[in-house]
Amino acid sequence: MKNYLSITDIESLPKWVKEARSLKKNPITNKDLGANKTIGLLFFNNSLRTRLSTQKAAMNLGMEVIVMNFGNEGWALEYGDGTIMDQGTSEHIKEAAQVISQYCDIIAIRAFASLTDKAKDESEEVLNGFKKYATVPIVNMESSTGHPLQALADAITLAEHNTKDRPKVVLSWAPHPKALPHAVANSFVQMMQLQDAEFVITHPEGYELDPNITKDATIEHDQKKAFENADFVYAKNWSNYSNYGMVLNQDPDWMITKDKLGDAKFMHCLPVRRNVIVEDSVLDSQQSLVIEEANNRTYAAQLVLKKILEDLE
Amino acid sequence: MKNYLSITDIESLPKWVKEARSLKKNPITNKDLGANKTIGLLFFNNSLRTRLSTQKAAMNLGMEVIVMNFGNEGWALEYGDGTIMDQGTSEHIKEAAQVISQYCDIIAIRAFASLTDKAKDESEEVLNGFKKYATVPIVNMESSTGHPLQALADAITLAEHNTKDRPKVVLSWAPHPKALPHAVANSFVQMMQLQDAEFVITHPEGYELDPNITKDATIEHDQKKAFENADFVYAKNWSNYSNYGMVLNQDPDWMITKDKLGDAKFMHCLPVRRNVIVEDSVLDSQQSLVIEEANNRTYAAQLVLKKILEDLE
Amino acid sequence: MKNYLSITDIESLPKWVKEARSLKKNPITNKDLGANKTIGLLFFNNSLRTRLSTQKAAMNLGMEVIVMNFGNEGWALEYGDGTIMDQGTSEHIKEAAQVISQYCDIIAIRAFASLTDKAKDESEEVLNGFKKYATVPIVNMESSTGHPLQALADAITLAEHNTKDRPKVVLSWAPHPKALPHAVANSFVQMMQLQDAEFVITHPEGYELDPNITKDATIEHDQKKAFENADFVYAKNWSNYSNYGMVLNQDPDWMITKDKLGDAKFMHCLPVRRNVIVEDSVLDSQQSLVIEEANNRTYAAQLVLKKILEDLE
Repeated sequence: MKNYLSITDIESLPKWVKEARSLKKNPITNKDLGANKTIGLLFFNNSLRTRLSTQKAAMNLGMEVIVMNFGNEGWALEYGDGTIMDQGTSEHIKEAAQVISQYCDIIAIRAFASLTDKAKDESEEVLNGFKKYATVPIVNMESSTGHPLQALADAITLAEHNTKDRPKVVLSWAPHPKALPHAVANSFVQMMQLQDAEFVITHPEGYELDPNITKDATIEHDQKKAFENADFVYAKNWSNYSNYGMVLNQDPDWMITKDKLGDAKFMHCLPVRRNVIVEDSVLDSQQSLVIEEANNRTYAAQLVLKKILEDLE
Repeated sequence: MKNYLSITDIESLPKWVKEARSLKKNPITNKDLGANKTIGLLFFNNSLRTRLSTQKAAMNLGMEVIVMNFGNEGWALEYGDGTIMDQGTSEHIKEAAQVISQYCDIIAIRAFASLTDKAKDESEEVLNGFKKYATVPIVNMESSTGHPLQALADAITLAEHNTKDRPKVVLSWAPHPKALPHAVANSFVQMMQLQDAEFVITHPEGYELDPNITKDATIEHDQKKAFENADFVYAKNWSNYSNYGMVLNQDPDWMITKDKLGDAKFMHCLPVRRNVIVEDSVLDSQQSLVIEEANNRTYAAQLVLKKILEDLE
Repeated sequence: MKNYLSITDIESLPKWVKEARSLKKNPITNKDLGANKTIGLLFFNNSLRTRLSTQKAAMNLGMEVIVMNFGNEGWALEYGDGTIMDQGTSEHIKEAAQVISQYCDIIAIRAFASLTDKAKDESEEVLNGFKKYATVPIVNMESSTGHPLQALADAITLAEHNTKDRPKVVLSWAPHPKALPHAVANSFVQMMQLQDAEFVITHPEGYELDPNITKDATIEHDQKKAFENADFVYAKNWSNYSNYGMVLNQDPDWMITKDKLGDAKFMHCLPVRRNVIVEDSVLDSQQSLVIEEANNRTYAAQLVLKKILEDLE
């Protein structure tokens, strides 16, 4: 594999999930694979799980890891073509990406959506800038529009806990005081489209995700109805997509409660705001899979890095 | 050993000091012990010695090290039970501690006192939060009320330089322009209570430390008298404890001078403000042990990590 | 070798360049040399190339690497002798340098010029403070007045691309909106003084570099004339030296263009502001060597670290 930029880079989800679960059982069996290989983890935004799990995954593969908080340790990057760079940006992505490619065998990047400029966010200028100019593989550690390492970890978690041929999986919007990106929801939707499941998205009217992502997914505005007979409920807030980046709804009735959940398993990418997104009683119950999802981040990352390392010339 | 949270976790100070001094002679003899084990160093506050010496100690044991400045690289943590998290905190300690435990075999934490809320500081919400919810051992890299790695390094340093059966050791308050925590003084006092020594604490009236820490320790408000026949003088500023976190005294007469010191050895945890806490002539003399104390931080940490690694299942 | 503080620490530039080019062919042949040795990279300023290439170099030599952003992770350092430290600084360089020397076998430091106090900048208080008090070798990762790792990488790049016995190399000032240090230009000039080349410096009148650095170097204020028959043009902005740190000229006519460049190769240390320092068409052409210069930073650093490691007792 060359890059892992989005869910569409997964060649076969069932095979990947199987392989990741196998890695999880023996995480250091490939410790020689990454010898004398370096991964650069470039953070343009905060991170806990991604930062630690990706390091852990790389170390499990024997790689050397360089972590850089690009935003405050490096130089402000320019992405425009032909720009006269006499303002705030000091270095062009053309140089940065080529240069870092000489020090790192793989570059992993976290660069969140601005939520102020839809066109810019959808152009994925940071991720695509690196993809365009780097000469080594690129891994998406959450970009403006996708978080495919999270969704792969979610797929592993679903597989571990699913007991049915065709489970019902519901992605539910939940309230949040701040404007959040669509990346996690987008990648979860795309991942579910590769699964044999009854998949339903529920959110308040007007909170539709990008229709190019959801395609013909079932959308149900009645959360209660959506949750009927659900096996898994995946909660996530996102800001409004049409009125891009706006917080138009904080209705607490959309919070996930134990009562609403029934027997379904609860999933969330974390960090999660307790008693805003979901009740304590859900998170503190056996129905919650959120800790295992975070654990599976390591094996999702390790699988992706393993596949990339195997294909390095 | 499970956790190293305070001096009370030391099962036998003389044995530990002996073992640490032995490690110091051969620091890399246990390089295999930490193979494929990861330590996460989580900093909620600045650090020089702790940051570097703990990394060094872990590397001497062959561990993989992940360093994270939690305050500005991660998410603001919530500690309260049942909180409706619709304000500034994004992630609950319950999730954070459980999640990090999946990536790290040991978690080390630095989280200073606020000095504004005594009850909160004494509850050690960060350290105890991790202790409560993490599923791996926790090491205290300085918390609100204790700095047991420093005190262990001090014990090693005392042992290296002591020539008497029962030395006289004086802990002296010294002036400082800013409000400082009580952690270093507390752990030094507790460590001295495990030593056979004549131990005296001297400070201006009203600058008593927590009586639950000092217990029946000798307190002498006349610094000159306290220093008579001292073998070791350990200087440290702390802010007022009764009027919690206040700077009520900056009397330069409490500064440690060469003249006052006599033949005693001088100790301080560093960083030290020259000519405020102590005169240049003391620090620049052979009587100063401050550099060796810092050196011993490596072996204090290494001993603690070694004991924890040996007890990991 | 003990320290690498400036170009004057290079014993023989031709030998070093030859050895670095050999390392570049087999970068991991000395992977045992740095076993159980630790390098501390202390950053007082931002960095991309230096941060990553020096880590990479150290890892190629099998060293353990500790990276610290001293400015915001440690304590504000005091450099003055005899200071009563009751103001903003918390720790004296005397203690900091001695302490870090106990955790690290080599200390590398980046500390830029203030550009507000020429005497202070030229005293190199940070670099020289570490040199004075540390007990281990010191490496300059760009100080107030020099960037000798960059100039060594430039020498490697020149050697790789030079086809003549005595090439013509031009250092050209170029415009920039912000006040920049003289370090890169200084070290490049000093490095060129160790080369057999026709070396010309061109800049607007009044933009003379420190005459103690340039000595009898040819200075030509007519950029066009300077560029005649040039084999290599090295562009760099620096702020005014006489009117220390002022930006007195932003004349776009000094920008390097394809037209001006003729057949010369283009060099720059990066980061570079496109269409301010140099036209896109230059950077995007085969004449640009900037990416290779950055690549050679790894081998410049690796050579320096190798020489230091070989001479550690």
